[in-house]
Amino acid sequence: MMKSLRKELWFNIPTRVAFVNITKEVHKAVKESNVAEGLCLVNAMHITASVFINDDESGLHQDYKDWLEGLAPHEPIDHYRHNRTGEDNGDAHLKRQVMGREVVVAITKGDLDFGPWEQIFYGEFDGRRKKRVLIKIIGE
Amino acid sequence: MMKSLRKELWFNIPTRVAFVNITKEVHKAVKESNVAEGLCLVNAMHITASVFINDDESGLHQDYKDWLEGLAPHEPIDHYRHNRTGEDNGDAHLKRQVMGREVVVAITKGDLDFGPWEQIFYGEFDGRRKKRVLIKIIGE
Amino acid sequence: MMKSLRKELWFNIPTRVAFVNITKEVHKAVKESNVAEGLCLVNAMHITASVFINDDESGLHQDYKDWLEGLAPHEPIDHYRHNRTGEDNGDAHLKRQVMGREVVVAITKGDLDFGPWEQIFYGEFDGRRKKRVLIKIIGE
Repeated sequence: MMKSLRKELWFNIPTRVAFVNITKEVHKAVKESNVAEGLCLVNAMHITASVFINDDESGLHQDYKDWLEGLAPHEPIDHYRHNRTGEDNGDAHLKRQVMGREVVVAITKGDLDFGPWEQIFYGEFDGRRKKRVLIKIIGE
Repeated sequence: MMKSLRKELWFNIPTRVAFVNITKEVHKAVKESNVAEGLCLVNAMHITASVFINDDESGLHQDYKDWLEGLAPHEPIDHYRHNRTGEDNGDAHLKRQVMGREVVVAITKGDLDFGPWEQIFYGEFDGRRKKRVLIKIIGE
Repeated sequence: MMKSLRKELWFNIPTRVAFVNITKEVHKAVKESNVAEGLCLVNAMHITASVFINDDESGLHQDYKDWLEGLAPHEPIDHYRHNRTGEDNGDAHLKRQVMGREVVVAITKGDLDFGPWEQIFYGEFDGRRKKRVLIKIIGE
C-alpha cells in the first residue's frame, strides 16, 4: 500500500533575493508521512524561485548572488523583453533556471538520505510577496 | 497496487531552437494513468533538448534564447571540440544543461499539482529532425 | 507491493575535475532491484559534484570543462567569499549548480528507459578525496 503526503511551505521574503534553509521543514514532513522507503519531491510553485541543495554557508550564498547577478543582471530593466509586460523580474526567470526548480531526495529508513553537507534551500529571486514551495512524498 | 503509465511525445521542430508548451499533453497522460497520488517525470530523450517549467510568455522565451546564445554561442562552429566529430551542435549540449533535462511534477487528486503560472515546455536546441520526450507516471 | 533498492557508488578521482560514465553501475542496480516499472534517482551526495545525463564523447567533455571554467573560474581563489573559510572550492559549488545534482530516470520493463545517446555521468569538480553517489530505485 503506497503512502503519500502533500505539504506547502509559505514564504514572504522581505528582499528581492534570498536563500532560506528549509531542511528542517522537509525533514518534519518526511516524519509525518510515515514513509520508510520512497522519494521526496520539493519544488518551487513559482517560476521566479528555486529549490536547490547545497551548503549552508553565508559566504557561499553571497557568491551565488554575485555570480547569478553577473550571469543575468537585474538591470537595466528594459534589457528583458519579458519586462515589457510591466514586470521587472525578467532576470529572476533566468536565475531560477540556473539554480533549478526542484530537488528529488531519497527517503531511506524513514529519513532524508543525505550526504554529509546536503541542505535544502528555497531560493527567492523576486520576493516581497507571498510564494509557496510544494513537498510531495510517495513511498511505503 | 502501484499504477504506471509511459508515453512518448514526438517533435520535428522546423527551426534549430524553439520552446513548445506540452502542458496539455502531460495533463492528458495524467488523466489516462488514473493515478490519484504520485509523481510524473517528463524528460527529453535527446541530449540537445530540455524539458523545463516556466512561464508561457513569448517575450520571456526570446529572453531565454538571447541569454543562452550569450552563454553558449552557436558560432564559431569550430569553437567546440565536439564539432570535430562532424556535428555542429556543441552549443546545444551546453544550452540543454542550463535549462535541464527533466522535470518531476507531483500528482495530487488526479491532477498536476502546479503553482499559478507553471507550464511545461519542450526546449529544442538542435531541431530539424525527429526527437522525443518521455512521460513516466507512477503512483496509486 | 512496492519494491525499493538503495546503493552507493564511491569515487576517489585523482584530478580536481573529471566526468565518469556510471551508466553500467546504474543499469546493474536496476537489474538487482527487480523493479519492472518505476523511477530511478541518481544523485551526488556531495555539494561540489554533479550527476547528469549527456553524451559519452571526450571532445564534448572538454567543452564542458572549458565552458564551466569560463562561467565560474577556479582562480583567483580569493574571488570567492566561500574560500575565506579555508576552502579553495568556491567555484566547484557554482559549477555543480549548472550541471545539476541529480537525474531521475524512468524504469520500464525492468530497464533504464533511455533515448539513443543518453548516458549517466558523475561530474567531479573538487576531487582528490573520497566522495559518493546515491542510487535509489522505487517501483513494482
